[in-house]
Amino acid sequence: MRTLTRLRPFVPLMAVGLVLAHVARAAAAPGGVDMLPVLEALVVILVAAKLGGSLFERFGQSAVLGELLAGIVLGNLTHVGFPLFAELAHLPALEVLAQLGVLFLLFAVGLESDVGKMAKVGASAMLVATLGVVTPMLRGWGPARVFFPTHDPLTHWFVGATLAATSVGITARVLGDLKRADSPEGRIILGAAVIDDVMGLVVLAVMTGIIAATNSGGQFAAMDLVVIVAKALGFLVAAVVVGRLVSKAAFRFASVLHGQGLLLSFALAFCFLLALLAQMAGLAAIVGAFAAGLVLDEVHYADLKARDHHQRDLHGLLDPLSQFLVPIFFVLMGLKVDLSVFGNLGVLGFAGALTVAAIIGKQACSFGVLEKGLDKLAVGLGMIPRGEVGLIFAQIGATLHVHGERVVDDAVFSAVVVMVVLTTVCTPPLLVWRLRR
Amino acid sequence: MRTLTRLRPFVPLMAVGLVLAHVARAAAAPGGVDMLPVLEALVVILVAAKLGGSLFERFGQSAVLGELLAGIVLGNLTHVGFPLFAELAHLPALEVLAQLGVLFLLFAVGLESDVGKMAKVGASAMLVATLGVVTPMLRGWGPARVFFPTHDPLTHWFVGATLAATSVGITARVLGDLKRADSPEGRIILGAAVIDDVMGLVVLAVMTGIIAATNSGGQFAAMDLVVIVAKALGFLVAAVVVGRLVSKAAFRFASVLHGQGLLLSFALAFCFLLALLAQMAGLAAIVGAFAAGLVLDEVHYADLKARDHHQRDLHGLLDPLSQFLVPIFFVLMGLKVDLSVFGNLGVLGFAGALTVAAIIGKQACSFGVLEKGLDKLAVGLGMIPRGEVGLIFAQIGATLHVHGERVVDDAVFSAVVVMVVLTTVCTPPLLVWRLRR
Repeated sequence: MRTLTRLRPFVPLMAVGLVLAHVARAAAAPGGVDMLPVLEALVVILVAAKLGGSLFERFGQSAVLGELLAGIVLGNLTHVGFPLFAELAHLPALEVLAQLGVLFLLFAVGLESDVGKMAKVGASAMLVATLGVVTPMLRGWGPARVFFPTHDPLTHWFVGATLAATSVGITARVLGDLKRADSPEGRIILGAAVIDDVMGLVVLAVMTGIIAATNSGGQFAAMDLVVIVAKALGFLVAAVVVGRLVSKAAFRFASVLHGQGLLLSFALAFCFLLALLAQMAGLAAIVGAFAAGLVLDEVHYADLKARDHHQRDLHGLLDPLSQFLVPIFFVLMGLKVDLSVFGNLGVLGFAGALTVAAIIGKQACSFGVLEKGLDKLAVGLGMIPRGEVGLIFAQIGATLHVHGERVVDDAVFSAVVVMVVLTTVCTPPLLVWRLRR
Repeated sequence: MRTLTRLRPFVPLMAVGLVLAHVARAAAAPGGVDMLPVLEALVVILVAAKLGGSLFERFGQSAVLGELLAGIVLGNLTHVGFPLFAELAHLPALEVLAQLGVLFLLFAVGLESDVGKMAKVGASAMLVATLGVVTPMLRGWGPARVFFPTHDPLTHWFVGATLAATSVGITARVLGDLKRADSPEGRIILGAAVIDDVMGLVVLAVMTGIIAATNSGGQFAAMDLVVIVAKALGFLVAAVVVGRLVSKAAFRFASVLHGQGLLLSFALAFCFLLALLAQMAGLAAIVGAFAAGLVLDEVHYADLKARDHHQRDLHGLLDPLSQFLVPIFFVLMGLKVDLSVFGNLGVLGFAGALTVAAIIGKQACSFGVLEKGLDKLAVGLGMIPRGEVGLIFAQIGATLHVHGERVVDDAVFSAVVVMVVLTTVCTPPLLVWRLRR
């Protein structure tokens, strides 16, 4: 009782403390979002990205490799007893910033080219994309059959399909860093990667359709396939034809408006709109951002550029946005890599075989380059990285069953993760080596 | 049964549909974040901000007023049967982008000034801030007593306290748009607004402490007040003294690193770090961003600037980031205004009296300007806007009780919202009118 009496003077103090904790939280979250972890994460990621990037540039490598490895190191400190940064990978705010970063990256890459230049390498891009889907699937099917002979054949094909789609982010970044995005090789790689995305989607739809049909004892409905392909192609055609007209009209309209900052705002709105439409058509948002850059032409906004105090073009305006947001995408990609997967020796053999299949499979792409005198090997190397799309395939496979067996089990899933990490990490040095010669 | 048989061929099709819905969701949310609503919101907000801003610039007004009103219109379409955009106000991703925008705004404003220039107007800023807290409190206490005579006196004082803190965002933006942030008047207003934030926090702590003490029948502990003030002042002193050294050292370190984009990344990391520390010290994050701009001096990063391809200084690099994110902050602020509050006639009388008290109360600030020949009225006008801090006060008041009665009831809360809207909307035209003379 005496203790309680002694504590009495502290009651108001404690009340104030409680209220202040409340104030701090309210101040931290004016709209329900706690900015503290976001700010912490941004400080860590910005500095880590620059330290990692700088170290690798010092040795003639692409900064993106340093950013990826910085993310991998931060994310895996938890395995050596420092679980400081592992939760950064799961902050939704950071994910949004990273996604905007990769949209800006592809938009900027698209701006460097245009529809005409792209069409010139269209046949090659189409052939490269086709080879880049078919051969990795065949190459992936092989190891899956050897390592898991008792699994259903559909499983083997599904594993092959996870190797189909190229992740355009890494290659676009390396090409941009080396100022080669607008070279013929660069255009072929980027065009093929976009077509890859469409083909990958079709392959996934066919695979899951066949699995569903097998399970229900029915037949795969070809009609649905047509719808998927029509939506995707419809978006691409509309983006190029209608998008061009919309872009012209939007900037003509913007040029009669008063005020500053119209060029960047309208360009970003256009980029986000096409990203949105691409996603609604079942494609990746980055395909829309790339298409937006492709159709947006400097002549559309010449008036607005002349009005800018510093006569900056869109590249000059986008550059700081990319400087801020693009490294967040790559560090976050690194943060999501759980190195403990590599500790599972049973998985490693299959993962190694899958990675080799992934790398060699894409080298067939070099045969798709029709133009004379181009660096065919560079095209093959540029198609190597696999990213989110492969992981999405694997995730969907993990939810599917055929004859009561999971199509992608834990071992296969881990192997796909290892394959994504290795193809992502090996591409920048290979491409730098080849393009710097 | 026959119907079922007929449906049979569609089973695989439906399965494919289900899987595709899954794919679409997975593609939309590679990290668990659905980008579709974010992209939609960004397209709408970027275009609306420019249309609103342009319209008001056309008539010689500040663009910020147009952005606010664009947000208010979008958010309140729901009351005339178009609930299209009301939910945009509650997207966490948008909130984060808006918060980053206001940090960039205050960082840029801080960069335009420096500690020495700020210290020169320090005495005036201190006096302006003190008058700007005391007189609005007294002026707000009056109407509260008249309209709610039966409420506890503590309630009247609490209402007065909601009028204390100036919202620096609006004023900083208008001063920036008119290129007057670095004028003596601009520095006094911005300095006073920062000091206001500290004082507002102290007032809130004292008020809630007294209420807690009244309820428990005890005494208010002055010791806790000392801790609050010490933390806030400690942050400000540390930011200016230690921050300067950290900034110098960080940029010297950055200048030995390889690669591009070091200037912007390190500057942003520094800005976010001080924003983080400010928030941890119980202040608003924007106070930290402003302090970061104040102590960061161009001589710190001369080496890095020389390395940039276009010799851009931090202002040139920050400008596109602000162009993208700052309008999001102001449109979102508008989106959160629910005009239906104005439909409550019982509230409107008190709200009007509170708004008049808020505007007139801050005019006492002009007596705090010690320097000769300055535009004292402009300082008074610049201190008018109330924002988040007033709302946070009201929100906390709504959770407190004195003698079993809520300190801030629904009518008072609505009146505070109306006051915030009106002071925010009336400041830009008043300030433009005064500073353009």
